[in-house]
This record gives sequence, C-alpha cells and structure tokens, in this order.
Amino acid sequence: MSSNQPPVDPNLLAWISNEYHDANGSRFETLDHPPSPLEFSRLVHISRPVLIKGFIPPALSRWTDDYLVDRMGKRPVSVAITPNGQADAVTTSPDGSQYFVEPLVEQMTMEELLDCIGQGSSGSRRDEVLYLQSQNGNLYTNSYFEGGVSADCEFETLRPDVPAEVPWCSDALDKPPDAVNLWIGDGRSVTSVHCDPYENIYTVVRGAKHFTIFPPTDSVWMLERSYRHATYVRSITADLELIPSLDTPQVRWASISNSEIEGAAPTNTHPIRITVRAGETLYLPVGWWHHVKQARDVTIALNWWYDAETQGLNWIGLSLLRNLENNDHSEESE
Amino acid sequence: MSSNQPPVDPNLLAWISNEYHDANGSRFETLDHPPSPLEFSRLVHISRPVLIKGFIPPALSRWTDDYLVDRMGKRPVSVAITPNGQADAVTTSPDGSQYFVEPLVEQMTMEELLDCIGQGSSGSRRDEVLYLQSQNGNLYTNSYFEGGVSADCEFETLRPDVPAEVPWCSDALDKPPDAVNLWIGDGRSVTSVHCDPYENIYTVVRGAKHFTIFPPTDSVWMLERSYRHATYVRSITADLELIPSLDTPQVRWASISNSEIEGAAPTNTHPIRITVRAGETLYLPVGWWHHVKQARDVTIALNWWYDAETQGLNWIGLSLLRNLENNDHSEESE
Ligand SMILES: O=C(O)CCC(=O)C(=O)O
Ligand SMILES: O=C(O)CCC(=O)C(=O)O
Repeated sequence: MSSNQPPVDPNLLAWISNEYHDANGSRFETLDHPPSPLEFSRLVHISRPVLIKGFIPPALSRWTDDYLVDRMGKRPVSVAITPNGQADAVTTSPDGSQYFVEPLVEQMTMEELLDCIGQGSSGSRRDEVLYLQSQNGNLYTNSYFEGGVSADCEFETLRPDVPAEVPWCSDALDKPPDAVNLWIGDGRSVTSVHCDPYENIYTVVRGAKHFTIFPPTDSVWMLERSYRHATYVRSITADLELIPSLDTPQVRWASISNSEIEGAAPTNTHPIRITVRAGETLYLPVGWWHHVKQARDVTIALNWWYDAETQGLNWIGLSLLRNLENNDHSEESE
Repeated sequence: MSSNQPPVDPNLLAWISNEYHDANGSRFETLDHPPSPLEFSRLVHISRPVLIKGFIPPALSRWTDDYLVDRMGKRPVSVAITPNGQADAVTTSPDGSQYFVEPLVEQMTMEELLDCIGQGSSGSRRDEVLYLQSQNGNLYTNSYFEGGVSADCEFETLRPDVPAEVPWCSDALDKPPDAVNLWIGDGRSVTSVHCDPYENIYTVVRGAKHFTIFPPTDSVWMLERSYRHATYVRSITADLELIPSLDTPQVRWASISNSEIEGAAPTNTHPIRITVRAGETLYLPVGWWHHVKQARDVTIALNWWYDAETQGLNWIGLSLLRNLENNDHSEESE
C-alpha cells in the first residue's frame, strides 16, 4: 500500500482548471438518437456530458398519476422529508453550526406522495417537502444483476416499465449497472452540488431537471470540508428537528451553497447548465459535479449508475483533483 | 490562454507512480484474435498495453529478402546510419559533452540495405549500423488519408502488402492513422526510451522486437533534460562525425541510459517487458515510455500511429506527469 498522498498545490489545481476549460470549452453535444455502443464508448473516453434524445423507456408513455397509483396500490414507498427541500445537504442548525443533514425517511403510498407534491398539491404535509430520492437502487440493485436473491424492491410493480439496463451503455462498458433509481419530486426539492464515482445515465420521464454541472477539474473551487452528520427526526410535536448523529463519521461535502450556484456561478468555476426534459437523457460522466433543480410541477426521472473504470489514469486523477487521500471516492470520509 | 504551469511537486509524482502501480500492476493482456472496434475502444479507455495475435497483413507471408529486393528494384530508400546503432539518442561526443544526436540519412537500394544488416551481413559498411526507421509515415502519411496529392513514397511498391489502416483501431478511434511506418533493422540498433503523443499499433513482420515499457506515471523517473542537438555527418575521410547543430532548438529527452534499462530497471520505475514476434501486434497506449531492441537477425516491423484523444483529462494529465509546460507534447522543446 502507498503512503499518504502529498497535497496537491492549490495553484496547480487552479491552473489545471483553467487549462482544462481552455482546451475543452463549455459546449456539450446533443444526439438526436441514442449512440451505438461503440459511439458511447468513445464518449465515455472523452468524459464530457452529452444530451441524448430518443432513449424512451415504456415509463415515458405510461406514467400518469392514475397509472402509478393503480400499479403501486397500497405498497409503502420510502420518501425523504425535509423542511426546506434539501435532503443530503449542508444546513445551518438552529444553534448556528453547520451539519451535513440527511432527511427523515417515511413510508407512504404512491397516492399520498403524489397528493403532496406538484403545483396545487392538496396533501396534508404543507410545511414539509417530499422527495422520492432513495437512490439505493430502488428499482434494481447489483444483487439483481448478479442473479442473487432479489432484495425487497418497493417498485417491483413498476419494473416492467423500466429496462434494467441501458443497452448501449452496458455494451459500451461491458457490465450491468450498479444501481437503477427512480426520482419523484417537485420544484421545492434541490440536490446540492456533489459528484459520484459513477458513469450516470439520467432520463427524465415527466417534467424537467435543471442540471448545473462542473468538470472534475473544478473540484478545487468546490471547497470541500468535513461536516458533522445530522438527521431530521420527527419530534413529539410532529415537527422536523435536526438531530446531530452520535456515531456517524464526518462527511466531506462541497461548502459552496446552492444560492451561489443558482445565481452567478461561484468565482473561477466553469459551469454548464443543461435542462433535461421528458424523453431526454443526460450522460453525466464520472467525477463531474452536479447541482440539480427541477420543474415546479411533478418531475419524475430514472437513472442508471454504472461503476466507473478504475484502471488507468483517470481514477487516480479524479482523486488528486479533490486532494483525496488514499484514492477514496466515497462520500463519507473523516 | 493559460499562464505558465506551476511545477508539480516531485514527491507527488513519486506518490502517483507508486499508487498507479499498486492499482494496475505490471500485467498485460494477450488477445488470441484482434479485438472488435468496441473491445478496442474499451482498451484505449483503460490505456494499458495489450499483445494482440492474429492481425496478419499480407506482408507477413510475402516479405522474403528476394521479394523485397524484387519489388523495390533500384528505388532509393532512406536509411539511418550511426556508428553505434543509436539513432535519436543522447550521446557523449568526443569532447565529452552530451548531445541529442540524429543519424546520418543516406539513400541506398533495398538490396544494399539487406546486404548490410542481419547475421553474416556481407555489406561494405562494416563499421556502421544501418536502420530503416524514417518514421515520417514512410508508407502512408496523413496527406494520403486526406486524399490530397500523395507525397513521394519510397515504398509505393510495398503498399499492396500493408493495409493503410488497422480496421478495428480506425473504427474505435473514428479516424485514420496519422502515419504508417516501416522499420527494418537488426540487433545492433536500439531505440532509446521515449514516449509519443500517439496510440501505437506495432506489428512485427519478421524477427522480434523486445519492448521495455513504462507507464506514463513513471515519467518522473525518466529525468528528462534539455540537450543540444547534433547530427552524424560523413567527413571527407568517410567516417561518421558528430556535428553540433547551429540552429536547431534543444531537445528534451530522458536522461536514463539504455544500459540502465537493459540491465536492472532504473530505481523506482515499473517496467513491463514484452517481446513481440512475427505475427504479433503490440498496442502501446499514448504516453507510455518505450525502449526497443530487436532480434540479432533482420527484424521487420510496421506501425500505425493514431493521434491520441486531446479532449478530456488524459491529455492534460500526461503533460503534468512530465511537468511539461503549455501542454506541449512535442519532442522538441527549449
Ligand atoms: O435528480 C436529482 O435530484 C439528483 C440526481 C443525482 O444526483 C444523480 O443522479 O447522481
Ligand atoms: O521499433 C523501434 O525501434 C521503435 C519503435 C517506436 O519507437 C515507435 O513505434 O514509437
């Protein structure tokens, strides 16, 4: 095993950020049809975002509210609940300190969820923001692909509408996805800026998602810090309370705020803004930072996460750009 | 345009070299058949060397000495001539200073060349080492692929035996080669360690080539220095004389010596030794350092150089590993 990584000079990281932008610009390609596996393999090698039209899972034509309620019936669905629409984000607690806060997760029916989100929502939870964002492979997990005992899947009845794999991506990468996720929310939910160790295929089924993305070379401007961990918990008065965790390790997270990203981009960064509409798919390459907002009304999306290639230079490069020690790409590190 | 690159800390480069080796090891894959374009695209993304069997250009079954002499007739062929077999290498001149020395290039017939190389060579140039290594696209250049006026080609009559493109590579990279080269030499010629801005497909037609290669992450151990330029010139007494160049810029070249590479590998490096025999093809990815020896008897090889992808992180990464300024991958820099 290697010893600890010497830190990378911030001046060098700043230089790389500009050099990368000078060489690659802020353009993204739009394809009118899904790529062939070979074309997609080339795109993965370049590792730039691509907006892809014409990848149309059955969900796209089927998923009305009525259909979803009908198919899901009384099955419980795990939903993230926050007072402010920020699940998995740095939040200032009433006592003034900052925490990385995870949402309260409660189970409800699809009908209840759909009643509580979107414009003119009539649900009972007026002061709370609901976001179905379990992102644990809620549709398919790698145990599904390994042919093992299929773990409980809340959305079993929706699987016929969602291909387990994106054929051109699985072929290009020569592997199945690691996780396939369903996302249901509205304009009140925002996903704070972060990056993942995955090649991400992200398809919008209804509504629209507004991605603000930054190349891995902008990592230096994300100002990652370690935050204490907290969770929203329902108090006896039924309010959401932010409760610091006792045993959870600190979480390393970007310290730039959503408002910085939604307004003018943070100084020195090179954002690309891409709106993904129903029937469109974003290829978001490994290591790209993304901040995600959505249309005011109900927005439904699917995504396929594929483990990124760890052989070769790219994987080490991504760690170095974040000054991560020990090649640790996980979200949680001391 | 970016300002000058801040230097990369040598301790960081050393760490990267070990980390890359820990993660990737020294193995190389051997394929029994040429890959499909998609398979090759995946290999290019990983950027590790691969030994490929079964890619058999017509040259392989046709190129006896008689055939070559017959097809080439009296056409002149440009041959590199040195006293020591080291064309394009750092050499100590009689006055004790070091130069990057280019060979004398003389024209002769194929018959004369073949008479002078190999075991039991009977040619007249006993004290000189001959190597056909013009490596300027001596078989096909990019002007050929661009359909322009085909420049003079010394080996026009051998073209029917050499495909202009490697189909699975051109398809994978979505472009034709930049240059296709013919190499003819013997065990007295050595190519000193260097790296190229190309994806390299290298096929041995007769004999064998012994590659010692190092990943781009070993760049730090190559100890690149700037050398004054010199050329071998034939003096009035017909001897080869090393003549310093007056107007040629200095050349940046690895300062580790051939003998270091042929014996034990230089300290800290991670060499991979691969012998490529007749009928075998090496995929040598962009940025990999290579030192090349050959079998004692006549060795004939072909290679296809494809411009490497300059979009994305890899290209900038390769420069940084060499502490090259301004993303300059050319061989000649002040
Ligand atoms: O849709 C969202 O809110 C976030 C999506 C995301 O972060 C991802 O797919 O990695
Ligand atoms: O065959 C040789 O002597 C050298 C080959 C080489 O350097 C190359 O193909 O890049």
